[in-house]
Amino acid sequence: MFGLKEAEVAELVRTVAGSDLDRSEIEERFARAAWSGISEPGDGVAGEVVAMLGAPTALTAVIDRWTPEVFLDRLRSTNIMADDIEKALARWMPRLESGPTIVALRQAARFGARLRVPSDESWPTSLDDLGHFAPLALWTRGTEHALETFHRSISLVGARAATGYGEHVTMEAAAGLVDRGYAIVSGAAYGIDGMAHRAALASHGMTVAFLAGGVDRFYPSGHDALLGRIVDHGMVISELPCGSQPTRWRFLQRNRLIAAASLATIVIEAGWRSGSLNTAHHALSLSRPVGAVPGPVTSAASDGCHKLIRESLVTCVTSADEMAELAPLSGQSRMPAEQPAEQPVDARDDTDSASSNPTTARVVDALSARSPREAGDIATRSGLSIGDVRAELGRMLLDGAVREAERGWTKRAEPAQKPRQSRASG
Amino acid sequence: MFGLKEAEVAELVRTVAGSDLDRSEIEERFARAAWSGISEPGDGVAGEVVAMLGAPTALTAVIDRWTPEVFLDRLRSTNIMADDIEKALARWMPRLESGPTIVALRQAARFGARLRVPSDESWPTSLDDLGHFAPLALWTRGTEHALETFHRSISLVGARAATGYGEHVTMEAAAGLVDRGYAIVSGAAYGIDGMAHRAALASHGMTVAFLAGGVDRFYPSGHDALLGRIVDHGMVISELPCGSQPTRWRFLQRNRLIAAASLATIVIEAGWRSGSLNTAHHALSLSRPVGAVPGPVTSAASDGCHKLIRESLVTCVTSADEMAELAPLSGQSRMPAEQPAEQPVDARDDTDSASSNPTTARVVDALSARSPREAGDIATRSGLSIGDVRAELGRMLLDGAVREAERGWTKRAEPAQKPRQSRASG
Repeated sequence: MFGLKEAEVAELVRTVAGSDLDRSEIEERFARAAWSGISEPGDGVAGEVVAMLGAPTALTAVIDRWTPEVFLDRLRSTNIMADDIEKALARWMPRLESGPTIVALRQAARFGARLRVPSDESWPTSLDDLGHFAPLALWTRGTEHALETFHRSISLVGARAATGYGEHVTMEAAAGLVDRGYAIVSGAAYGIDGMAHRAALASHGMTVAFLAGGVDRFYPSGHDALLGRIVDHGMVISELPCGSQPTRWRFLQRNRLIAAASLATIVIEAGWRSGSLNTAHHALSLSRPVGAVPGPVTSAASDGCHKLIRESLVTCVTSADEMAELAPLSGQSRMPAEQPAEQPVDARDDTDSASSNPTTARVVDALSARSPREAGDIATRSGLSIGDVRAELGRMLLDGAVREAERGWTKRAEPAQKPRQSRASG
Repeated sequence: MFGLKEAEVAELVRTVAGSDLDRSEIEERFARAAWSGISEPGDGVAGEVVAMLGAPTALTAVIDRWTPEVFLDRLRSTNIMADDIEKALARWMPRLESGPTIVALRQAARFGARLRVPSDESWPTSLDDLGHFAPLALWTRGTEHALETFHRSISLVGARAATGYGEHVTMEAAAGLVDRGYAIVSGAAYGIDGMAHRAALASHGMTVAFLAGGVDRFYPSGHDALLGRIVDHGMVISELPCGSQPTRWRFLQRNRLIAAASLATIVIEAGWRSGSLNTAHHALSLSRPVGAVPGPVTSAASDGCHKLIRESLVTCVTSADEMAELAPLSGQSRMPAEQPAEQPVDARDDTDSASSNPTTARVVDALSARSPREAGDIATRSGLSIGDVRAELGRMLLDGAVREAERGWTKRAEPAQKPRQSRASG
């Protein structure tokens, strides 16, 4: 391996990837550690080459300067062209030195970070849906348990410049989803992301943060404390080696991991060009369900969500229940809508009996609570036949909705029932 | 006619329906005036009978107590059963007297209201899409001109218990639609309806209010002044004769007229069971486009809108432009979305270059504004080949995005351009 002291490298790898690894397992992990630094996230050619040749051989091939022809000869049944290889080699060469990898491993050891590869038991297989764009390795800090929760996780993402509304909705959503057994995935950014992690932790739920730089250098720095708590109770993950800086490109690529890791992605607040729309599109391209939370049309912080909803790409979600509906957990039946259809009519709204029995409605309209009315009078007022009126009055008498006095019928005052979660009247 | 002084009736009808009417025209109008009181709004059997026999004959038929058999014999090719006729006659009989019709005509004359029938030049043909449920006559107060504006009208409806948000959005919507040449149709209720009419008037636009009672008795009384102004500058319309009281049933039927009269219906705020959802469903059943404005999920006043959007029955609309897109006026091309795609990237958002050229993004990431960097260094940092980096730097130099100094390349600080209507950052 790069003609380095193998013992030193092997020791380092064992420290960050597992004490009981044999030689070939160590080579595999060192090679992937190197690849995670040589290729930028989302380098499909690297993914395909590593998949076909195995990480160590692929690395040797680059070091030994294989010609594109030799590569193509070895990479059978791929759709890579000589030109792709040539370009890829030109990208990888400038980074082809062992120094950074060793440094990354040392740094990982110092921070108690783990190096994970696809052959690990604990590898989150949901990321493999990214095909050749799947990460070549993962650098993680946190509780092992976190990796088992991806199969019941939902991503909550959104604007960094979130509004109070957005943060409130995020808090409710994260807490509600944790209560329903979901883990919360996000990107640890300011605004919605940070609130999603915070609320999950506050609800003693599992939360995972994907970073666009090394897990040894928390970004944004204002979230040092938060990321520290995520390491203690959840997990911080990056596909980039320790020491890597976050860049725009890496933020965009990081978003694909957030989309792939979770069962569904929810965009809570997003400006017209927010990066969270990028996450949503990654999720859509993976056929993962995506939800967007609407907001005031007077707030640009919801423009991106409304854009997604208008393009009918995503589902409009307004509560944790509706978010959970997008990714029901095994054995979990579809959550009921927040307001059941058989909800009582709000008696204060006189245009409000759309779904109630029309005959009943018309008889009720024709009745008075004070002055008793004869069936004939009620028929004239309601435009119903006397027969129908009598029949309806009979039914209503049984329901206790009307009183029959000597001089005619009167209606009992309706209780002004309010819809369950009503905070205003429709 | 009911053995009344024909002269008096004729004089009345001429006053409210047209001074130059001949005898048969007068009969037609008197009969429809009577029918508008005998049958409740939306009585399909009445609609079909009147359509087949003509209003006067249909009226005579009821007065002369035709048997269902005779009716069916005369009503060929209808899907009405003897049973339907029997029930209908039972509904109509209790109201079969000329008194109320005469009173309604006198009242109409007193209030300067007009009686309109389908044979009138000015009849709003959009209502005929209701088929047998179309109104048998219309009683109107206002400017003639209003009736010609239905073909370019949009209905704005919503909760009576509107929030400040809903009223603000309604104001913007009505003003924006008036600017684009639309007339505003609504129901004169408190809340959204009232604001829609008010904003249309304030913008010197045309507005029409459909009432659930007679046009001689404004409802709600709190909108007396507003309805008076609508009569002065627009029109107040009802299918019920003067003197009729609004009832729940009539509110629901009134909603079908609002939906049928306009090109599209927009629900701005609506509770879970708001009557405006009923209007939306009438519009959908007529295949009229329907839009709903999203709002805070924390406000029950938007629950109904979100319900419609979630059921993918309607389009999510967030601006007057998007509302106008639902019903483009002839010669009016689709309005552009409020934020064009070619909008500048908001430089403050580092996750924000989703749609920009990836190579550019990666080179920009690798550049510094202060310390000059060599192409090779930039290649290593960006994970691109030196060739690609040189080519990109060349392009960027032409765009003035980078500077070349002796010791290498630096990037020029990006102008922090903001999206056009940005009120917050994504």
